[in-house]
Order: sequence, then C-alpha cells, then structure tokens
Amino acid sequence: MRVSRLMLVTLRDDPAEAEIPSHKLLLRGGYMRRVASGVYAYLPLLWRVLTKISAIVRQEMDATGALETLLPALQPASLWERSGRWQGYTAGEGIMFHLVDRQERSMGLGPTHEEVITALAADLLRSYRQLPVSLYQIQTKFRDEIRPRFGLMRGREFIMKDAYSFHADEADLRLTYQRMDEAYRRIFSRCGLRTVAVEADSGAIGGSASQEFMVTADAGEDLILSSADGRYAANQERACSLPEPAVPLVTPGSGTVELHTPGQHSIEALCAAQGFEPSQTVKVLLLLARCAEAKPQPVLVSLRGDQQLNPTKLANAVGASLGEGAGALLDLEPIMPEQIRSEGLPDWPLGCLGPHLGDELLAGARSWQTSFLRLADATAAELEAFVCGANRPDTHLVGARWSAMVGGRPRVADLRSAQPGERCLQDPSQRLEASRGIEVGHIFQLGRKYSQALEATFTNEQGLDEPLWMGCYGIGVSRLAQAAVEQHHDHLGIRWPVAIAPFEVIVVVASAQDPVQVALGERLHDELERAGLEVLLDDRGERAGVKFKDADLIGIPWRVVVGRGAASGHVELVERAGGAKRDVAAQQVVTLLQEHIGAARLGLATGSS
Amino acid sequence: MRVSRLMLVTLRDDPAEAEIPSHKLLLRGGYMRRVASGVYAYLPLLWRVLTKISAIVRQEMDATGALETLLPALQPASLWERSGRWQGYTAGEGIMFHLVDRQERSMGLGPTHEEVITALAADLLRSYRQLPVSLYQIQTKFRDEIRPRFGLMRGREFIMKDAYSFHADEADLRLTYQRMDEAYRRIFSRCGLRTVAVEADSGAIGGSASQEFMVTADAGEDLILSSADGRYAANQERACSLPEPAVPLVTPGSGTVELHTPGQHSIEALCAAQGFEPSQTVKVLLLLARCAEAKPQPVLVSLRGDQQLNPTKLANAVGASLGEGAGALLDLEPIMPEQIRSEGLPDWPLGCLGPHLGDELLAGARSWQTSFLRLADATAAELEAFVCGANRPDTHLVGARWSAMVGGRPRVADLRSAQPGERCLQDPSQRLEASRGIEVGHIFQLGRKYSQALEATFTNEQGLDEPLWMGCYGIGVSRLAQAAVEQHHDHLGIRWPVAIAPFEVIVVVASAQDPVQVALGERLHDELERAGLEVLLDDRGERAGVKFKDADLIGIPWRVVVGRGAASGHVELVERAGGAKRDVAAQQVVTLLQEHIGAARLGLATGSS
Repeated sequence: MRVSRLMLVTLRDDPAEAEIPSHKLLLRGGYMRRVASGVYAYLPLLWRVLTKISAIVRQEMDATGALETLLPALQPASLWERSGRWQGYTAGEGIMFHLVDRQERSMGLGPTHEEVITALAADLLRSYRQLPVSLYQIQTKFRDEIRPRFGLMRGREFIMKDAYSFHADEADLRLTYQRMDEAYRRIFSRCGLRTVAVEADSGAIGGSASQEFMVTADAGEDLILSSADGRYAANQERACSLPEPAVPLVTPGSGTVELHTPGQHSIEALCAAQGFEPSQTVKVLLLLARCAEAKPQPVLVSLRGDQQLNPTKLANAVGASLGEGAGALLDLEPIMPEQIRSEGLPDWPLGCLGPHLGDELLAGARSWQTSFLRLADATAAELEAFVCGANRPDTHLVGARWSAMVGGRPRVADLRSAQPGERCLQDPSQRLEASRGIEVGHIFQLGRKYSQALEATFTNEQGLDEPLWMGCYGIGVSRLAQAAVEQHHDHLGIRWPVAIAPFEVIVVVASAQDPVQVALGERLHDELERAGLEVLLDDRGERAGVKFKDADLIGIPWRVVVGRGAASGHVELVERAGGAKRDVAAQQVVTLLQEHIGAARLGLATGSS
Repeated sequence: MRVSRLMLVTLRDDPAEAEIPSHKLLLRGGYMRRVASGVYAYLPLLWRVLTKISAIVRQEMDATGALETLLPALQPASLWERSGRWQGYTAGEGIMFHLVDRQERSMGLGPTHEEVITALAADLLRSYRQLPVSLYQIQTKFRDEIRPRFGLMRGREFIMKDAYSFHADEADLRLTYQRMDEAYRRIFSRCGLRTVAVEADSGAIGGSASQEFMVTADAGEDLILSSADGRYAANQERACSLPEPAVPLVTPGSGTVELHTPGQHSIEALCAAQGFEPSQTVKVLLLLARCAEAKPQPVLVSLRGDQQLNPTKLANAVGASLGEGAGALLDLEPIMPEQIRSEGLPDWPLGCLGPHLGDELLAGARSWQTSFLRLADATAAELEAFVCGANRPDTHLVGARWSAMVGGRPRVADLRSAQPGERCLQDPSQRLEASRGIEVGHIFQLGRKYSQALEATFTNEQGLDEPLWMGCYGIGVSRLAQAAVEQHHDHLGIRWPVAIAPFEVIVVVASAQDPVQVALGERLHDELERAGLEVLLDDRGERAGVKFKDADLIGIPWRVVVGRGAASGHVELVERAGGAKRDVAAQQVVTLLQEHIGAARLGLATGSS
C-alpha cells in the first residue's frame, strides 16, 4: 500500500480537543476524526488496527466454544421494563440513548444486551442438554455519556465485544467464567498489552462477582489498589483494606460534654481548634436518593472522621436498603440548603450534624420520605465514644455513644474508600499500592438476575423448570486500541505492538528524486508484500525529515530507510520500539523482517514498551 | 462443529409474521428471530452467511483500491441541515430515526453517510494529487420504515456496505463508477446470485445517474421492465417506453362541444357511456405537495386517459419545478374533499375536472399556495384535440385544445409509468417484458451535490479551488443474504450457494444408537475439518427423518449420510441443490468434496439453482 493512496493527513500540533497522549496521537497520526462530542470517524489506519484486535478476540472466543452472533442495536423499551432497567438507563443519570419511532413506540440504543439475549434464550433454550452455551458479538454500542472525553476512552459510540453464557447451575457458570478469564488474559497479551485483573464493582449490570482487566497507564481513569505481591488487586470503587485503628477518646465518665465550636464546620477545623484526632470523630453526610418508583429518600451517612466516602459502595448500600420496590436508583447527591427550603422544611444545622439527627426534621416535607435512611461505615459504628455535631449551631458533643443516639443504631455497611498505604485485608504485613489503569475488559457472574426477570427457564435433568444461570463478558475493542497507544508511545509518536499495528513495515524512500532509491524502495515494497508482510511504501514527494517524522508518529513497528546506501545495495533497518538502527544489505531485508515479525504477529510475544 | 452445540431450534410450521418464502425459511431454519418490528437478532448460522458475504464484498472493494473505514451511526443534525436533507429525512415520510441527546442536541441514526463522508473529505482532501480516492464501510444502518416487512428485505436495522469516491473531474468519476459496476457484478456472481443491472431513480440520494442491481425473484418488491435482448432494463419507477399512438379525435370544427355526463366520473365510465377511446381523453389529477420550507402546493396533473401516473417521476418533476427554495418534498398525496373544505374553499367538481381549472378556485385558501403547479405528461400535451372534464358537475368537453386552456400551457414532463408490452424506446421492434427483482445494490454518480453544499473543495492542477466530484455505491448485505434464499430454495428448504453457505457439508449420523455409525460420523467430521472444509456433524439423538428434514431446511450444500452402509464403509453423498444421491466409499468422501467445493467456495462458479 502506498502512503500517497492512503488519504493520510497528519497534524504537526496537538489538537485542542485532546488531553491525554493517546488521544492526541490518534488525531495527529490521522487515525480518526471527531464528528460530534464523543463520536468519531475511524479512518483506514485505525480500521486496520480494529480489524486485527477483532480477529484476535474472535479466535480466542471461538476457542472457548462461544458462537458469534449479532443482536440489534435498537431495543424495545418493553424488554427493559421487564428487567426493571428502563428507568435507570433512560432517566436521571441513565446513559441509554432513546427515541420514539414512527409508531410512537419507545426504543433504546443498546449500551449492553442482557435483555435481548435473555429474551432469545427464553425462546431458544429449553433443556439442560443444550447447556452450556455462549454467544458473542462484536458490535457498535451507544452510551449518552455525561462527560464524553479522552477520545475512544469514553466515547458515545464505540465498538464492544460482548458475550453471554447460559448454564444449568452455578458451578458450571463458574467454570465458563474461569475459561473466559483465561481467554481474556490471552487476548490482551496477544495484543501486546500489559494488563492487571482486578476485583470490580458490578454496577448497573449486577450479579454476584465481577472482575475488570486494566491496561496499566498513567492516564488511566481508574485507580487500582494492589498488594506488592500481586495477590490482591481491586478497583478503588470496590477495594477493601484494614483501616488504621482509631485513637481512643478518653472521656471523664459515660456522660457527654457540649463544646462551643463556632466556625468549626469541618473535621479539619474542629480537630485543629480542639486538639482531637480525626479518628475520634464521626462525620455526618446528608444525601438525597432519587429512585424511579419511590419518593426521594434522605440518606444520613456516618463515617469515621479520618475516612473518605466511597460513592460506589454507598450507592450499592442505598440500593440494597431501599429494595426492589423503590425501582432503579437514578441519582444520589448531597442535599443542598435550598433543597431543604423548597421542601418547606426549617433550616438544618448543616455544619454541626450528629448521627442522632431526628426524623422530626423531615415532618411536613413536600415530596421526600419523612424518615432518614441511616447508614454507618463499620469504622464509625465500632467507636465506643466519639466526637460529633450536636445538631445545634456551633455546638459539638464529646463522648457521644451509639447507645444514646435517637433514631436507633444505623445499618452498618462498608462505605469507606480504601486508600494507598493502608494495610491489606488478606495480609496485614503488606500495604496497598496505587496505580492507574484503563478498563478494557469486564467479566460478570450474573447469576439469575435477568433469567428470573425475563422468565428464561430450562428443564433440568429432573424434569423441573428453573431459571438459567448466566454470565456476561465484555471487551472494549475501540477503547483497547487507544489504551494500546497510551501504553505504547514516546515523545515522537505511537509504538504499536506488532500484532495490532496497522502495517508491520514502512519503506521510506529518502529522496523521491533519486531514481535508484525509488527503484529499490519499490522493489523492497513488492518483495515484502509478496512475502506476506503488511507493508507501506512512503512514495510521497515530501522531504525525508517529514517522512521520518510521520513514520515515527503513526508508529509502524519496522522502518526500512532507502537512502544514499541504495547505490551500494544497502538500507537502514529501524525498530520503532527500541529505536535500534542498523545497516543491512537490501537482499537480507525480507528474511530479517520475516524472522522478527513472524512470532510477534501471532501475538506470541507481548510486544515491547 | 456439532449441531448439538449450535443452539439450533428449527420450526415445523410457517411463522405467522412471515409472508414470503425466504422470510419463512430463515425463521424456520433458526437463522434469525424478530426482536421488534423490522428488527432481528442474527443467530450464529446467519452470522456465518453474513461473514462470508462481507468477505467477498471486502475482497472486491479492496481490489478496486477502496479503503475500509468506519463512520459513526450517530450523526449531528447540523451536518444534515447543511446538505438540506434534515427535514426531508426526519419530517413527514422521512425515514431517519432521530433523537435528542443529554445536551439537547438533535442527532440522526445514519441511514446513509453522504454528509459525514463529505465533511471528512472537506477536512482531509486538499489537492488533486490525493485523488481519486474511495472509502467504504460495512455497517449497521437504520431506517424507520413506514411499513417494515419481509424480514431482512425491508427492515429497520440492517447491514450495508456503502462506498464513496472522490474525483477531480466528472470523467474520472465515470471511470470509478464503471469499475464499481464491474466489482458489483463480480460480487453478486461470486455469491451465487443471478442479478440484472437496471436503470434506476436516484431518489433522496440524488445525483445525475444511478443503476440498481436486482436479484431476480418472484417475490421481489420491484418491477423490472426489460427488452428481450437484455440491452435495456429499468426499474419501473424510472423506465421509459414508446406509448401507443392516440386514436385521433374527429371533431366537426375547431369548436368545443359540451356533453352531459351524469355519473361518468372515471375515464372508464365516460368512454363506456360515450364511445370514446381512453387515448382520446385527458384525465386530471389533483395532489398536494408538502415541502419543508414552503406553503402546501396544489398540483394539477394532466395525463392521457389511457396512461398511468408514475409517482416517482411525478415527485421528481414537482421537486424540480418548486426548486430548492421550497425545501425538501415531504409528501405528495391526492387532495381529499375534506381538505378543500378545511381550507375554506368552495367544493370543486372533482369527477369532471379539466386542465383549465382556474387558480381562482384557490383564492382565499387558508394555508395553501393560491395558484396550481400545472404539469402534463407528454402524451397528453401532444394531443391536438381531446375530451376532458368541463369543470362543472356532470359535464365534459369534446374537442378541447391546449391553446384555448386557461392557466396557460402546462409544464411538460415524463410522468407516465411504462408498462409491460409497450415498445422499447431504443428499439421499437422489441416490447418491454416484466420481471420482479430484489434490489441488492445501487450505484450513483452524485456529481457535486454534496461537495457544494458542504464546501468540500480541492485545489486542481491549475491551483484553483473547486468542489469535489463524488460517487456512492451501496450493497444491502443482510438483504442480499435473504435474497439468496428467495432465489435458491425449494419446498423442503434453503439451497445455499456454496460460497455463502453457513457450512459446506453436514454429516448426518442416521442412528445415534449405532456405535459403528457414530464412530464413522465422528471420523468423517474430523477428517473433513482437517481438510479445511466447513463441516457440521448432526450428533443429536433425534430420529433420522428429523435430522434429514433439518438438513434440507437449513440448506447445507452437501450432505454425507452415515447409515447402515457404515458397517461396510459406505456412506451416501447428497447434493442439496440438485438432490442427486450416490453411494460412495467413506475413504473417498474427503477427496470428492474437496473437488466439488473448492472452486465453488471461491465463488468462481455461480451456484446452481
């Protein structure tokens, strides 16, 4: 393929729309162009990368016995209403694009396909004899992201591989989950990526267990906490740790002392002024949970003063506490003073709240529930005596005890964010280390959540009908392409792993005016192509420097420079990843490159960084 | 691959939702399932067919030098407003699904990609040196069809290959158009389809010339008119013919005679009662054209009484007459008496209209334009003297002449539908023959319609900027799969052409209880697979008859029956297309099938029917 026929347009400067290196490089290298916020055209070079990634994904999925299929992007609202997810995915922070068709029927644009596949399974799977079975597809998905950013990392239209498995029992589901885990590790390794598997929150998909695969990269959106020995790794959304013990609060008796604390509205200010340790205090947060099928629920959260709230854990705990009757949790945000007023309620002592804030404050609320959902993190619940707000302006209590609290003992849940440096639960001699990652895969044990909702049953060996057991398994194909760039680049441009590079070799003719160089370049291009290598010939009339810069930018793994040495039958061979250069005889080039590229192409090497 | 692992569910009876054979067979054979009106899940067998068709399409597109790419399905309304198509595609009969995103921006779901690709070309193509260049994609497209039907034939979500070419001049566009024509013929032939290329109307895509490729099949939605020698073929929407000459109307002088014609409100009734020939009459049709940017326009159409109106030609003529200022033509429907009344106009003599109906009838219309757009087909305009309505109840005129008509001579256009049996324009010694077809491809010379609208220019050899010349080229990939079934089936099921069959061979073990048969079946399956053939093994515990029926239904080209002959090392080899059976030694099977399938797989044979 000739560069002159490739419609290649590279950019010298970083485009204003891009923040992270991979996004900048894919735009600058002519791999893609933005069409709308979070929506990109994939140009021919990127399409070749995506095709190679997809081929590796297909091979490994086929090897697990999964069958390829294609489900529709357009999905009837009625299916999502049966699973109970329509509201959660379309209202509030829901990310499903949706529309009304000519017949006035509501439809969603699939961000995921649990509903469709489960309805199909209900139709097609009848007997344990058909089980287990897995289906997968590589498909364009849609998400109306709140903040589309970072190019293909968080786009509104993207390519995903999603797979779904069906089983007669949970043990069989676990077997397939394990095989998918192994297949995923092979896929990422064959694509030349360094990844780490981490425990993950299952989010809106649900199910009992899930694991994410993270490409490690400084610009990753996710924080990974892991033990140094690699035996524990989790997304911070999900991670657990041993908290430091609290400093005991010494109180004169079992009574409570009131302190005048003007202006001390934060734990930091209070401790600085009064000499307490943050771990001796309980801080109280007020949030409002909006659900699809219930009145807004005020939530009162108690945390030990030195701990940070984990919003994901809190949302899970609130959802579990409110139960299915409340419908999908649409959002969960701090309560603002103006919201209290517009409910027709008196002002609350917001800087001095204590866990004993009474439900009478909610009496007469216009639209809210009239009692708090009270949740406390275990670190707060374990405190014997503590410092907290007195529920009166400028006043705190010292020596407060849960036993004396109105509203009863709160429900205890894990609500704190584990932090780097904290001790590991499994092995307190190790401390959690932080790294950043880009999620490229996520596998779930769904259990029977969807099969029960959509009545997808099978007849078991005993002749009884029961709901199918399900797993689901996703890979962000287009995101993976960009994650590869994020992990494999330098100041000059991209350094594609061979297995997913758009081309394996680029032949650069230094001077398009020198007929000897041109002839040798053409010959090498043709010979390399005949030898089965994927080769580009930069035949443009640009200066040599421009062509070298472009070759570095677009990141082809091997470069053959046909320059002055052409007259004596010599060329320069450059490896993009390490930058190593050497002079070789032109007639050796094909053999040398076949050796270097052969194994790497199959993804048997993991690619160098 | 084992049938037991294929999630195969075949249906004995025709599903109620299906009307035509191919739709019934794809549902019965377990190829697909309906998810919503016009929206299907493609099950593993169908996905294999689609993959093979796509591979053939890719090979032939790549051979033309076109580059594969992927453009987004989500397209900003602003792009379609620049081309002037947003209204026409989203209002009235417009078929584009559209939605409003989280940021309140309107977006369409691409039914076609002229706007996106032209905007990209404006960004990436700057110089004649980059031309010509072609891009293509194989992608899911969306159309909110008014009447989704016939399964994949007229669906709301479907797979298309669309390609776009860019040129420095019209001659170069014609060259690529010609190469695409040839590539299309190879694609359809390699897929085992009999197709005919026909002149076509360019519809909402526009441009100067277009050609459709039709798979001939009785259930086709399109009527093709062609000459017996095959040198002329056109979609009836577009076809032309020589009309029969009119029977001259003999009148006593140059004057007009009034006839009392009570109850004679149709041409048939009038001619029957008065003894006229239909070709001596002019019939007048009243329609209302609704456009995006103008008041509704009453249209008065004059046709010779023996001719049929062609709605496509009329819509084109109306659009051209109203000009760009009126915006997109949203719909064009006959005017109903209640519409006249609700405009506040007096009743019109609807059964006795003449071409001289005066504009004064529109005076005081509430929302319509107040003069008629008058169009006449050439056959009507050429009449010296004719019979027509007198614009008074129960009255016709004999001997009317255009020269005496109020409102002036109408604009003349080709508005008549050519009919089977009429003489060909090119060769009056031949008559048009009718056949039915399924459109699977359509290629267009777009000219500069989109490049002008979206300011996609390049610098020519003289250093001047001018708009790019464009072509576009579509293939309905999923529709093609169903069209293949429509052309290749019998009363037992599908008869796939080898090149696009989901599997090439099915090994059917007659008795799953006979260990000799089972062992031989397994051995042949493994040997055939090792020989590179795509082979299914029906290992299910069903009766032999059920398995034979399923094999016929799903239509695998070759069947190897392992039955009682297994003991003596013999099997039966059955060709699905012709039904020919023969006993062969088991050890011959691989060689025989390799010979039969080899060439057909590459699509070098056209498949038998």
